[in-house]
Amino acid sequence: MSGNSIGQRLVLTSFGESHGKVVGSILDGCPAGLEIDETDIQKMLDQRRPGQSIITTQRKEEDRVEIISGVFRGFTTGAPITMLIWNGDQKSKDYENLMTLLRPGHSDYPAMIKYNQYNDHRGGGRFSGRLTATHVMGGAIARKMLKNTLGIETNSYTSEIGKIKMNQEFNNDMVKSIYDNDVRCPDKETAMKMREEILKAKKEGDSLGGIIKSITTNVPVGLGEPIFNSLESDISRAMFSIPSVKGVEFGSGFDGAKLKGSENNDVYSVKNGKIITKTNNSGGILGGISNGMPITVRVAFKPASSISKKQDTIDIKTKKPATLQVKGRHDPCVVPRAPPVVDSLISLTLADHALMSGMIKPVL
Amino acid sequence: MSGNSIGQRLVLTSFGESHGKVVGSILDGCPAGLEIDETDIQKMLDQRRPGQSIITTQRKEEDRVEIISGVFRGFTTGAPITMLIWNGDQKSKDYENLMTLLRPGHSDYPAMIKYNQYNDHRGGGRFSGRLTATHVMGGAIARKMLKNTLGIETNSYTSEIGKIKMNQEFNNDMVKSIYDNDVRCPDKETAMKMREEILKAKKEGDSLGGIIKSITTNVPVGLGEPIFNSLESDISRAMFSIPSVKGVEFGSGFDGAKLKGSENNDVYSVKNGKIITKTNNSGGILGGISNGMPITVRVAFKPASSISKKQDTIDIKTKKPATLQVKGRHDPCVVPRAPPVVDSLISLTLADHALMSGMIKPVL
Amino acid sequence: MSGNSIGQRLVLTSFGESHGKVVGSILDGCPAGLEIDETDIQKMLDQRRPGQSIITTQRKEEDRVEIISGVFRGFTTGAPITMLIWNGDQKSKDYENLMTLLRPGHSDYPAMIKYNQYNDHRGGGRFSGRLTATHVMGGAIARKMLKNTLGIETNSYTSEIGKIKMNQEFNNDMVKSIYDNDVRCPDKETAMKMREEILKAKKEGDSLGGIIKSITTNVPVGLGEPIFNSLESDISRAMFSIPSVKGVEFGSGFDGAKLKGSENNDVYSVKNGKIITKTNNSGGILGGISNGMPITVRVAFKPASSISKKQDTIDIKTKKPATLQVKGRHDPCVVPRAPPVVDSLISLTLADHALMSGMIKPVL
Amino acid sequence: MSGNSIGQRLVLTSFGESHGKVVGSILDGCPAGLEIDETDIQKMLDQRRPGQSIITTQRKEEDRVEIISGVFRGFTTGAPITMLIWNGDQKSKDYENLMTLLRPGHSDYPAMIKYNQYNDHRGGGRFSGRLTATHVMGGAIARKMLKNTLGIETNSYTSEIGKIKMNQEFNNDMVKSIYDNDVRCPDKETAMKMREEILKAKKEGDSLGGIIKSITTNVPVGLGEPIFNSLESDISRAMFSIPSVKGVEFGSGFDGAKLKGSENNDVYSVKNGKIITKTNNSGGILGGISNGMPITVRVAFKPASSISKKQDTIDIKTKKPATLQVKGRHDPCVVPRAPPVVDSLISLTLADHALMSGMIKPVL
Repeated sequence: MSGNSIGQRLVLTSFGESHGKVVGSILDGCPAGLEIDETDIQKMLDQRRPGQSIITTQRKEEDRVEIISGVFRGFTTGAPITMLIWNGDQKSKDYENLMTLLRPGHSDYPAMIKYNQYNDHRGGGRFSGRLTATHVMGGAIARKMLKNTLGIETNSYTSEIGKIKMNQEFNNDMVKSIYDNDVRCPDKETAMKMREEILKAKKEGDSLGGIIKSITTNVPVGLGEPIFNSLESDISRAMFSIPSVKGVEFGSGFDGAKLKGSENNDVYSVKNGKIITKTNNSGGILGGISNGMPITVRVAFKPASSISKKQDTIDIKTKKPATLQVKGRHDPCVVPRAPPVVDSLISLTLADHALMSGMIKPVL
Repeated sequence: MSGNSIGQRLVLTSFGESHGKVVGSILDGCPAGLEIDETDIQKMLDQRRPGQSIITTQRKEEDRVEIISGVFRGFTTGAPITMLIWNGDQKSKDYENLMTLLRPGHSDYPAMIKYNQYNDHRGGGRFSGRLTATHVMGGAIARKMLKNTLGIETNSYTSEIGKIKMNQEFNNDMVKSIYDNDVRCPDKETAMKMREEILKAKKEGDSLGGIIKSITTNVPVGLGEPIFNSLESDISRAMFSIPSVKGVEFGSGFDGAKLKGSENNDVYSVKNGKIITKTNNSGGILGGISNGMPITVRVAFKPASSISKKQDTIDIKTKKPATLQVKGRHDPCVVPRAPPVVDSLISLTLADHALMSGMIKPVL
Repeated sequence: MSGNSIGQRLVLTSFGESHGKVVGSILDGCPAGLEIDETDIQKMLDQRRPGQSIITTQRKEEDRVEIISGVFRGFTTGAPITMLIWNGDQKSKDYENLMTLLRPGHSDYPAMIKYNQYNDHRGGGRFSGRLTATHVMGGAIARKMLKNTLGIETNSYTSEIGKIKMNQEFNNDMVKSIYDNDVRCPDKETAMKMREEILKAKKEGDSLGGIIKSITTNVPVGLGEPIFNSLESDISRAMFSIPSVKGVEFGSGFDGAKLKGSENNDVYSVKNGKIITKTNNSGGILGGISNGMPITVRVAFKPASSISKKQDTIDIKTKKPATLQVKGRHDPCVVPRAPPVVDSLISLTLADHALMSGMIKPVL
Repeated sequence: MSGNSIGQRLVLTSFGESHGKVVGSILDGCPAGLEIDETDIQKMLDQRRPGQSIITTQRKEEDRVEIISGVFRGFTTGAPITMLIWNGDQKSKDYENLMTLLRPGHSDYPAMIKYNQYNDHRGGGRFSGRLTATHVMGGAIARKMLKNTLGIETNSYTSEIGKIKMNQEFNNDMVKSIYDNDVRCPDKETAMKMREEILKAKKEGDSLGGIIKSITTNVPVGLGEPIFNSLESDISRAMFSIPSVKGVEFGSGFDGAKLKGSENNDVYSVKNGKIITKTNNSGGILGGISNGMPITVRVAFKPASSISKKQDTIDIKTKKPATLQVKGRHDPCVVPRAPPVVDSLISLTLADHALMSGMIKPVL
């Protein structure tokens, strides 16, 4: 399937190019009978949209979603749901001069070699972060499906930007604060520091990375298939499809590797008649299967490769050293736009597993 | 496919149970014309086999591979290659008393719920680390295929055990030293410290986690499909299929998230007429596609959940608190056995992509 | 994938509804570097389009294709190619009164049950013959790919309409005559008889079935995978995706079942240094693999179920007998519109196999 | 997947070679909790086994199935069920001299080219009819699953051998008579004539083809996915995986193509409160979905290509004409051995669809 589709029973196919006519997606396998319309999707797209504040790119992308198939009289029909965003504001000329000077950290060199120059390189083409809008279109539907059927809900927030870190433990009361600020960090004070850090990097013509943390609540026991479709396998596959993601961990993750078994094991207990664990170092997943505790994931984003600062590079034609200065309007930090993308991909993965395991039926 | 198969053109299917008759695998899609026999596979299985030293489990698993289809006159035929290891030494009775006391950190609770008690729980059944032998059987073939055709080679080693860390940068000269000691750390001195740490944990009835680092060399530019089958997506999916893995990162990974773009971007250069980057923070992958630099992955293993130390838990029948002491012969640390497993799964992933991209042909 | 996608390396996904906004398709896995534009696709769509003559439906469907992704500067990029036809002339009201009276031979009863009333029933929805336009969009690209790379060419024609049969053996000179008349039968005289037969059925408010024969030439030896992806398996699967198809046979097919081995076996011979068979009872396929002879397929179409003649049926609400008269503009015979659909689906299947076997590369 | 696997939720993978160590299969995706043991499978294998009478090959194949994974304490666990038949009686030398003389109608020429001589040609290797035993192993489980859960049952019988045809309409009372004779025709008198015809062909060193008819009863409304996974698409794909099958039709099939819509449409009626159709020209499938009537399929088998009669051919080395006389023990007619194979593949397909549609749950 060449990388454009994900899922087994609930399949998202992404299409379109950053500076082409359209970006779009098909969600296939969505159960019939789910009430859905464009506003459900638009809400999440708006959370991802750039041009919202001075810390993100100044491109104006209206990102208006149009459903063109699979929904009839306000309900899904069981047929593929096709969604389009027509591309508007593009400045492809900004990119033309990049063609021979390789941009450090960017996909254009391997893409050029792989596709023998046929690749649509404008604005990053298929490799652009803009394509994450296609994940959000499908993800918004998956998210609603999970909430309406099993009560499952994924919420992601900015946990670190560069060296600034939110130190408080996340709790469910914070959910409603995530979108209160433009860095998507539920702690107001940390958010302000992050914002300053981003503006500083922007002024320097540089960029910052960061970490998104995601928590999924109300997960039933038994989602996930052992071995190659473990929840961790499928969620990580989805996470690494986001441009700039270079690390994924569940529960105690890399830190857990330094602990002893007696420290890292989560002790079972009973609360209100329900089996829980006292800690959640497992991140809600044991043997690849959900154990009923919240699923916690941390996702590391590298700093965006497109920076306006001068960089050393080579000219691919002459193979000689050269100096590059990337123009165009770029995000100094993509992390604040990532929470709805992470929400979407985790929701898609869990909904796919819920369909596979029979917890959600093909017709609602 | 319910979690038992991985790959698109080169498909590994794993079957069998830890204490059943057999563990086995099928490698389907292997090109015709590859010279292969049991010794190629046995060598990697032996690297993974327990009972080799006092730091691993004392179970004696001979792990003798038998190829029962797909090879004719010493060459692959293009048909599915089926490989079996007949299980010998099993002590299932050790596990019988665990049935009602939930083992912290272990898959048996979610598995019991998911499969409504039909799960073969003996020795962990499908969830046992023993099943990684099935990955190695297929991986050994993929590894040979990559080496013989494109010269690609993956080498993995133990980089951290608990709080002990190898500080030296890995270089290719270290490859031959990895299997010189039973912790699989190429630095002799660090290896000795790791060994002591493991023995200490063993004595305490506890377990340790750690980190495997993997380096793949001679990777051509252009392996990987954008978005959902990015190399990072497919490699991470494979990594998280290994029991106990809770984190995966590429190149600068989580640390890179703290850097600025100007620091993390790898500057291009030319060496002997070949385009390289001066640093390798990308871990050899840009936009999901290999850029010709070594692919570097770090994989975090939690400490094994099965420990002989007493643990608090509950009895699932009575839902009352209970104390658990797990018997049986367990690894105090599974990390030293993981390098051939990581090698195998990365080799399988890269060989699959090499077939998809036409770099390896369906008939050699 | 719920029935909307076909192919392994070259994947066609169909979407849209007969009376929805759009019918469309995505062709994923098409090699980069194929020169393509809308006119290549439009030509085949025009061959399928209704409203061309008095023997087909009087709906005016302009069927104007628009490529919205995957093509850049006139060449495919390797990204998904998305194609749309915006629906124009729809008279959904014609169908409203059908909701409770079951139409004999039509999909609406099982579809209503399967989708619990959420199905978009207007104009047949996903089940409409109109959806074959989505196959043609992808098929036109596959057909061009096969011709430009391997010289493979599929041509299909109307061989029988009701009881009227073309008796002449097809030869390659007839290819250019297929589209000379509106029944798509290369023999002029037979074509006239078929035309009369259709007009007669139309006048009676009835419909006719028929048989399409398809011949593919210049097929290399070795296309096809044994067993479940035999060429026959994959071509038949594609053929039966066409509404109204109820039978498929290759070479001597059902008649061959009456012959002896010594009669049905095709004797090998050498012609101009090339190995051929003197007869072609195998239809060019042995053991599921092409043997270099033309691939011949016969496809049986039932008479269209939608007829304006009065029919007995039941009312699904009352479960009482009722009389039904289907209004709307229907084809008295769909067979004349089927040749480009059959060409498309066979081309898609063969192109998929050519990619799988490495005969066509992922980048041209 | 290169042709060795079929199914989406219930996946059969076939492996092994006719004259290799083993033929085997894996059934993956079978729900946990189905009671199964070797005798369930052995019964159907015995119906397929050769050496049962003088009309089939005299090879003695004991075909003793062994389940080596996926069943625990008599019930399926949800893990892959692996089944083996160790090959015994093989006379590979009989085939050695065939290597340069091409056998008319046989797969060896295209296989030799496709696999560049690496193919295991002994006894037909992967292309041998012997491999249908792997379908039966999985099919026996699917058949039991369908019967125990939904009451669905497929029964197939020999309807034609060469020019001898059973003229009676099949009815359910005949089910128990199918295996009363060695041609598997429920009409005793016709069976005797068929038997004579086969013995006559055998004496002549020739072979016969024939037709299997299959009826599936108790099918619920709503099995099947529209378009590319229509029941007809998926059943035909499975049927054409059987060696020698060259035609498949549903309901009135090719004959229906000669009828008018008013003749071929099945009129709805109500019987005991259940919606039925008065005739069953649709073969129980409308729009690719089951309509609750019995699913009827006719499958055309060509006469076996391996005959002992002298045949003209060419020598592939010299490309000169030659005369061939095939030795070895072959079936003069494979049709009598096909009913359990057809039963198996239809059962596998329907069980897969029942799982996809949620009619059978992943845990029973």
